[in-house]
Amino acid sequence: MTVGIVGAGQLGRMLAVAGYSLGLDFLFLDPAADPPAAALAPHLRGPFDDRRLLAKLARRTEIITFDWENVSVAALRALAGRVRISPPLAALAASQDRVSEKRLFERLKIPTTRWRAVASLAQLQCAVRDIGLPGVLKTRRLGYDGKGQAVLKSQADLESAWLQLGAVPLLYEERIAFSHEVSIIGARSTRGEVAIYPLNGNVHSQGVLRVTRAPYGPLAWQQLAQRYLARVLAHFRYVGILAIEFFVDRGRLIANEMAPRVHNSGHWTIEGAVTSQFENHLRAILGLPLGATGARGHCAMINLIGAMPPLDELLAHKGLHVHDYAKAPRPGRKLGHCTLVERSRDDRDRRLRVLLATLAPNTRIP
Amino acid sequence: MTVGIVGAGQLGRMLAVAGYSLGLDFLFLDPAADPPAAALAPHLRGPFDDRRLLAKLARRTEIITFDWENVSVAALRALAGRVRISPPLAALAASQDRVSEKRLFERLKIPTTRWRAVASLAQLQCAVRDIGLPGVLKTRRLGYDGKGQAVLKSQADLESAWLQLGAVPLLYEERIAFSHEVSIIGARSTRGEVAIYPLNGNVHSQGVLRVTRAPYGPLAWQQLAQRYLARVLAHFRYVGILAIEFFVDRGRLIANEMAPRVHNSGHWTIEGAVTSQFENHLRAILGLPLGATGARGHCAMINLIGAMPPLDELLAHKGLHVHDYAKAPRPGRKLGHCTLVERSRDDRDRRLRVLLATLAPNTRIP
Repeated sequence: MTVGIVGAGQLGRMLAVAGYSLGLDFLFLDPAADPPAAALAPHLRGPFDDRRLLAKLARRTEIITFDWENVSVAALRALAGRVRISPPLAALAASQDRVSEKRLFERLKIPTTRWRAVASLAQLQCAVRDIGLPGVLKTRRLGYDGKGQAVLKSQADLESAWLQLGAVPLLYEERIAFSHEVSIIGARSTRGEVAIYPLNGNVHSQGVLRVTRAPYGPLAWQQLAQRYLARVLAHFRYVGILAIEFFVDRGRLIANEMAPRVHNSGHWTIEGAVTSQFENHLRAILGLPLGATGARGHCAMINLIGAMPPLDELLAHKGLHVHDYAKAPRPGRKLGHCTLVERSRDDRDRRLRVLLATLAPNTRIP
Repeated sequence: MTVGIVGAGQLGRMLAVAGYSLGLDFLFLDPAADPPAAALAPHLRGPFDDRRLLAKLARRTEIITFDWENVSVAALRALAGRVRISPPLAALAASQDRVSEKRLFERLKIPTTRWRAVASLAQLQCAVRDIGLPGVLKTRRLGYDGKGQAVLKSQADLESAWLQLGAVPLLYEERIAFSHEVSIIGARSTRGEVAIYPLNGNVHSQGVLRVTRAPYGPLAWQQLAQRYLARVLAHFRYVGILAIEFFVDRGRLIANEMAPRVHNSGHWTIEGAVTSQFENHLRAILGLPLGATGARGHCAMINLIGAMPPLDELLAHKGLHVHDYAKAPRPGRKLGHCTLVERSRDDRDRRLRVLLATLAPNTRIP
């Protein structure tokens, strides 16, 4: 059984590592010459929307999935009927456009930020009047890791933000004074089976995830997040792993965005859960029974960004699990991550603070 | 950093899976067209002792290791000075010849079976007179998984066993009426750091490992096995993972054989130990700090032999970790394994018995 993956980044790499245990084979499509997953499996090189290469991928695989959400829905849709594609393209499309995503959350009664679509400076002024300041102006499409965003704090910020981002359709939303950021990750299989992981507590900085801890927060948050995730899974008759990020504001969970794929905040599941998100994504799309999602301890994941610390220094921390994506270093680039699994929350947080002091000195955990 | 591996079987496959997390690359050498590890990394195809291919492997890698013990010591020795090779070839050579292995155990005061080298029927008769019956006649070289062995129960068996095996140098040894079979696995790194796993309790049938449980047995066995393993590690200034199998006879550990490589009885460490034997082998040969070897629960590993059960049936057992080596089925062939990690020994043994009833109905655990 060969799985085709559009995108050969670190998520594809970790999918392949998980899938080889199950005896699966992989074929990737990616424009890069030497993307992270290409060392592990054959790789068709070309643009994500290259119809000839996508057709080739479809011919040579039993099922197609993707490792990031900015692949072309139209190009994938052209393959429909020739090969199974999971997660569903309707979910992919919704996640690619912040307006569709907001409408989806509203339709499913999942609390989200107040927002307005913005296509002109006048509309932006209107939106700011309705929603207030501070707020965030975001491109409707192709945003990730804080790219394509500007925070508006006063009226004086409007014009410069508009000049910076206004060439494409935008969305303006209120900025939530959140106390916590959390995300929920779960899988739904072709059989309709659903399995949801413990809640993740996330710390972002400059729009990029720095640290995740799991399990996180009170049971009420877990239950609420699970309920919201289950609604989206059911709505799309979803297949695969889905993640939703929330802000927590006075006990309310406010949906920020969703990702129809394995998610950075779920990397701790490789060593920290009975079954990793990567294995469960593959199980889900292949119609296999889902694996248990319980945590095997108190987990923390730290992203390694911009430069990889020397491997021997990382591995000198007993019990630290290191993942190096074999990417060329570049400021702000996610190059790897490491995971702690401890017996108690206190042990975990103590060790996490020690690690952060050297690995991410500007990151504070609540 | 590229690691060259002579042999691309399931052990090589699991080494690569472990090593990709650390950002390593791999290059394999194996005579098979499509060996288990070849899906995951490039593969030079040719005999294990092909000097031209070995030289190519040495040119294209920073370090060479091997995934089974019957590779040619002479051919590897010819590479000396051109590339680092670990584990040491002296340990590999000792493990390839049962007589050298016995002498090593004796020299290091590690109890082993009584034995005689046998090169003629007359010598066999002599050996049986000295050591008694029952006993086991074994080829000195190239034995694994019970191949190249005959059990001698009475004088009448001598001649037929001699006719069956006598074309090559042999060894005759006493047959121990053991109560348990155990193995110890540990790593020693280029820095001299040593890390040893909890003891494995093994069940063989027809010379092939069927089931391993770990941690296993009383502390005294663990301490004894650790002491013996440490002696062999120190003797060779060993680098990498080493395994020794023992029979337990009235509380005594009697060394049966050693393997200078990752070992089937250590497969449970992938999910069941903090750091797997595969990762620790790579850490050891690359001079990285060794990872913690503690068990994360009560583990059991079942070999899947001859035919792979359907994946969906295996995965329907919650918490069962499945490894499919992607090998063509053949009677007696190891095609995969599966691992349970439970909170208590009783839970583990109860679930193990249920699994054995379908996966290995002829295997009984003590």
